[in-house]
Amino acid sequence: MDNYSYLLYLAIILASTKVFGLASEKIHMPQVVGALLAGIILGPSGFGVLHSTDFLTKVAEIGVIMLMFTAGIDTDLEELKHTGLHAFVVACMGVLVPLVMCGGVYMIFFRQDFTTYNVLKASFVGSVFAATSVGITVETLNEMGKLKTRTGTILLSAALIDDIIGIIVLSVLTGFCSGDSSVGIVIIKIALFFVFTGVVAFVFNKLFMLVSKEHWHSRRVAIWALAFCLVMSYCAEKIFGVADITGAFFAGLILCNVTKSRQFVAKKFTVTSYMIFTPVFFASVGMKTNLRSMNASILIFAAILVIAAIISKIIGCGLGAKMCGLSTHQSLVVGIGMVSRSEVALMVAQKGIDAGMINPNLLPAIILTIIISALATPVLLKLAINKGNGELE
Amino acid sequence: MDNYSYLLYLAIILASTKVFGLASEKIHMPQVVGALLAGIILGPSGFGVLHSTDFLTKVAEIGVIMLMFTAGIDTDLEELKHTGLHAFVVACMGVLVPLVMCGGVYMIFFRQDFTTYNVLKASFVGSVFAATSVGITVETLNEMGKLKTRTGTILLSAALIDDIIGIIVLSVLTGFCSGDSSVGIVIIKIALFFVFTGVVAFVFNKLFMLVSKEHWHSRRVAIWALAFCLVMSYCAEKIFGVADITGAFFAGLILCNVTKSRQFVAKKFTVTSYMIFTPVFFASVGMKTNLRSMNASILIFAAILVIAAIISKIIGCGLGAKMCGLSTHQSLVVGIGMVSRSEVALMVAQKGIDAGMINPNLLPAIILTIIISALATPVLLKLAINKGNGELE
Repeated sequence: MDNYSYLLYLAIILASTKVFGLASEKIHMPQVVGALLAGIILGPSGFGVLHSTDFLTKVAEIGVIMLMFTAGIDTDLEELKHTGLHAFVVACMGVLVPLVMCGGVYMIFFRQDFTTYNVLKASFVGSVFAATSVGITVETLNEMGKLKTRTGTILLSAALIDDIIGIIVLSVLTGFCSGDSSVGIVIIKIALFFVFTGVVAFVFNKLFMLVSKEHWHSRRVAIWALAFCLVMSYCAEKIFGVADITGAFFAGLILCNVTKSRQFVAKKFTVTSYMIFTPVFFASVGMKTNLRSMNASILIFAAILVIAAIISKIIGCGLGAKMCGLSTHQSLVVGIGMVSRSEVALMVAQKGIDAGMINPNLLPAIILTIIISALATPVLLKLAINKGNGELE
Repeated sequence: MDNYSYLLYLAIILASTKVFGLASEKIHMPQVVGALLAGIILGPSGFGVLHSTDFLTKVAEIGVIMLMFTAGIDTDLEELKHTGLHAFVVACMGVLVPLVMCGGVYMIFFRQDFTTYNVLKASFVGSVFAATSVGITVETLNEMGKLKTRTGTILLSAALIDDIIGIIVLSVLTGFCSGDSSVGIVIIKIALFFVFTGVVAFVFNKLFMLVSKEHWHSRRVAIWALAFCLVMSYCAEKIFGVADITGAFFAGLILCNVTKSRQFVAKKFTVTSYMIFTPVFFASVGMKTNLRSMNASILIFAAILVIAAIISKIIGCGLGAKMCGLSTHQSLVVGIGMVSRSEVALMVAQKGIDAGMINPNLLPAIILTIIISALATPVLLKLAINKGNGELE
């Protein structure tokens, strides 16, 4: 007879992440915060009700893969083409500055020597804070009626593009940690991954267009998309040594212009992931967060990291916007609008820990930074917009 | 670094079960048949591409649990009340006769002595063929415009009730195999399970009514339903020693009259299960089907079992219908309409194998019987209806 405790674990995770998620929504925090807290409180460093198991780890991994696929397929390439270059510049600066600043804070705080290995570790910490989570900003702008302004459009597109750039950065970093000793081989493998993705994109996009012409609304399309997403994740990780979530994201991106089926597929993925997979992912990150490893040093690091993460996005994206000719006020709004981090940051942190490049003891500091950046965004954004007498183009 | 092959396994299972499922649909067979074939062909007794792993076993188990929950929540208690006693008599006879006949065939064919243990094993084999899968019949009757006749209504209700009776029979059988030596304790535990279910029904039904009044259309209802279903499955298996799928089925039944949320919850369960969980279940049953264990003896047994499974339902349900005052023609249609078996039969077979009560070598015979019963139903049904000049009340 098998052990059935995984059923109970799943039930506890589902119920607790939802209860805590709803509670955090009540006090105007994203549900993710509650889900993380559920994992922390019920996990090994809290009441010890939940423990990480091989099964839960795999379910969580599928959760991450589905989240990234959904992010990919939700990318609106048409919209990106409109805002084009401006959003690209903002996104690039918004990845670069946090990468350098947050990585730098890590290097200086922990007095790391300037070796390749240490720089790689610092880059991993920095890359956690590269990708924006724009949900809260969209909500705030929408509430203030500023979403359809030029600033709002650039902000949204830049947030999409910085996901892509963030994922590419992660791929490169993961590639260098994959155990291949030669830098040349790593670079070739990463390059080959993108060539591979290009070829697959060409073939599968056509194939899906064909299938979805007739059956765009039938289960098979969603199931084939999932199989495709899993194969891409597997290949990315096993063959090319880049992260599986990179594969999942590009699988989504490849299908994002199969217009008819796109929403259908995205919806089925969303239902499947929120019903079981992503709650397990958030809870499992929470479970890994060992509060007992917190000490004065980590707390001080957390405080500095929070400041670096917020400031670096404002400076990076703000500068980018300014370089594109936006007014100082607009640039400030763009910068602040990109401060919030969420799911993608958690996934990158998780990958960094898996690859042995991020010390798990830093997880409390990273989570704290993610939560505070999410909380600070709407407050700062309202302040910044109102500074310009509430007007914004 | 973890092994990522589970991603590839999942992808292969999803793609192959769908391709084979669609192919079998093309030749007018249920998709389940194709999914089973995919597992047989790619599994250890075929090309050996797929192997059962701990992860896949757990995913398959969740698939079964979700299927049973959906069967429970889809039960229309109001409809059952209408046809009431008549359907109940048909269902009871339709469980009893196949149980005795198919179990008897097993006892006689394998020359089993008449010990308690052997009778229990035979009952397990018999109980596989207790529950009807009415999908094909509904399709056929609908196509012939006979679904809304009195015969059709009794047939539908009886098929629902025989799920419930089948599950109760399975619970009792599983209880007796759970390792408790004393018959008294087993009976008390089974009785306690039903008391427990009654109490839980009272509390949770009220609770869900309350929650779903305001939020019937929000994710939380579906997630709580899933957590509830998992806890019920766990308790059924671990505390009361009855099968986990019994717990899942009653969890669904408990929520089947939370009218507002019912369809919403059922839909979310359906999406989540067809996207990933049930294909793994069907494939894993296929993977367990060792064609290499097939020999002349098993083939002859399969042939006799097919006949017993078909005849016993026709006799059982037909007699039941006759006892309720239906005409001989109507009774024949009811009997034939109940011949088809599918998912539930597979689940019971799986449980029997897990409990060590069904020899895995019998699986090919059982699957063959399920497939042939499903194929024979529409043919026989059309013949029977047309025999009465195509008229049916």
